[in-house]
Amino acid sequence: MNEEFPGTGSENETKMNVFIIGVGLIGGSFALDIKAAEKQAVISGIDASEDHLEKALELHIIDKKANLDMLGQADVVIVAIPVNAMLQLLPEVLDRVHDNALVMDTGSTKALICETVAHHPKRRNFLATHPVSGTEFSGPEAAHHGLYQHKTNIICEVEKTTFKLQECGLQLFNNLGMRIRYMDPESHDKHIAYVSHLSHISSFMLGKTVMEKEKNERDIFDLAGSGFESTVRLAKSSPAMWTPIFEQNKANVIETLEEYIVNLQQFKKLMLQHNFEAIYNEMESTNKIKDILNGIVTKTS
Amino acid sequence: MNEEFPGTGSENETKMNVFIIGVGLIGGSFALDIKAAEKQAVISGIDASEDHLEKALELHIIDKKANLDMLGQADVVIVAIPVNAMLQLLPEVLDRVHDNALVMDTGSTKALICETVAHHPKRRNFLATHPVSGTEFSGPEAAHHGLYQHKTNIICEVEKTTFKLQECGLQLFNNLGMRIRYMDPESHDKHIAYVSHLSHISSFMLGKTVMEKEKNERDIFDLAGSGFESTVRLAKSSPAMWTPIFEQNKANVIETLEEYIVNLQQFKKLMLQHNFEAIYNEMESTNKIKDILNGIVTKTS
Repeated sequence: MNEEFPGTGSENETKMNVFIIGVGLIGGSFALDIKAAEKQAVISGIDASEDHLEKALELHIIDKKANLDMLGQADVVIVAIPVNAMLQLLPEVLDRVHDNALVMDTGSTKALICETVAHHPKRRNFLATHPVSGTEFSGPEAAHHGLYQHKTNIICEVEKTTFKLQECGLQLFNNLGMRIRYMDPESHDKHIAYVSHLSHISSFMLGKTVMEKEKNERDIFDLAGSGFESTVRLAKSSPAMWTPIFEQNKANVIETLEEYIVNLQQFKKLMLQHNFEAIYNEMESTNKIKDILNGIVTKTS
Repeated sequence: MNEEFPGTGSENETKMNVFIIGVGLIGGSFALDIKAAEKQAVISGIDASEDHLEKALELHIIDKKANLDMLGQADVVIVAIPVNAMLQLLPEVLDRVHDNALVMDTGSTKALICETVAHHPKRRNFLATHPVSGTEFSGPEAAHHGLYQHKTNIICEVEKTTFKLQECGLQLFNNLGMRIRYMDPESHDKHIAYVSHLSHISSFMLGKTVMEKEKNERDIFDLAGSGFESTVRLAKSSPAMWTPIFEQNKANVIETLEEYIVNLQQFKKLMLQHNFEAIYNEMESTNKIKDILNGIVTKTS
């Protein structure tokens, strides 16, 4: 039933050449899982940082180091780099791959990325994906097996990818245990601003607020419990990764931020009015999120 | 070296009568851990809810059901109820216990509680404590062994408790694996507003913002990853517990909320100005929270 991978059936019967561009948390974890799931896969790594590449080799995340000039050998390319670098590199990657290669991105924004390659002659070789998975850590050391198990992968504009390569991508994600959801890029960016991007800002600003206040009394953090740790966890995230996400999804993120600030101001107003009945009701109605969140699988916290 | 527990040495050589008032997450977990750590402990439970009390008995969290009239038998009383009910009940509990009994609260606020019992004739039988531990769940079913292992217990006005009972309380917390920190009630309330209370508001309002937006598209939550789940986890917390905490710590909480809102507005302003260099710097400097958080033990996430 399953389509075979692009490499199979060519002169090179036994290998699937997978190139991972960006061997950090996301790319490195794909490398590890693909090696485990696809025996014929040979993983080549490309990274702007020679240190990261060395580390990825040392940790057996990749089988060998490579560079952009070697992309003609690739059957599958996964580009897992910050979304600003993505806009520059993705067209070049598509320029370099052969006609049967599958190129996928992993960006947390989708509209601008899809727009950037919309008229590329090899658009049909490209599958736009957003694996909604990760941790607050980054770099090859943060990569680990099973990061994608039971996680959602949002695929955009699937119809713009050639059938055979759609199938290759989906089979790969299925083998990694991912759930697939299809969306258009604009809806993706709008909704993901609420369920991902806003969380990061709320967490960063919470961390900032507390650090500013307690800068002279660092042992105060010693009093914090797991609740605080949970809400500020995302404040450990990489600024290099997140700044371009906020930039590319600026309009949506500003909208979520405005609504969040209005709700906080309203909560403060109720406190100033000493209207704790209303505050109780606010919290009680938000408690409904329990049922909603029951659907979210959180193997990796 | 260790002082013996109050019950020991009396006519009742073999038993330590521990009364837990409020057999939910906090009180119930104390009951379980004390039973495991102190062989001679007999746990009596008191609760406003007969259902909770039945459930606690059924789950072997308590050894027997009791009521306030029986408090004269208590060697140790732990009062683990919402902080508004605490203000009413604590003086009555002190009225009823014998002269060698230790009474401890577990409230997340300390100033008003300490003030309430400041002039009570049995003030020296009281130890004001705040075990910084818990989960977003509540009720006897949420109680579990080991909740307090490696967690911080903030003790206020320790000098106002009689020596022998200070020692009893500290020995009990040591046996449960807790770390002790001493603070005055006002400092406690000020700092805990930053490292605990604000997190809850940020989480509740984040949950509210996203639920309002996505109320007609609930499957959008299906796209959320562990990052979102982490930041809204506290929005599952009990309004009955948290409303009186915000009320009692109103001035401090409003201050933290104001600073948080200012930081969010500043972030939004930078986005509107398209100043992503400044946004990068904001996030990078907040990343320092990594080192600070390394000290927080998060066995129970």
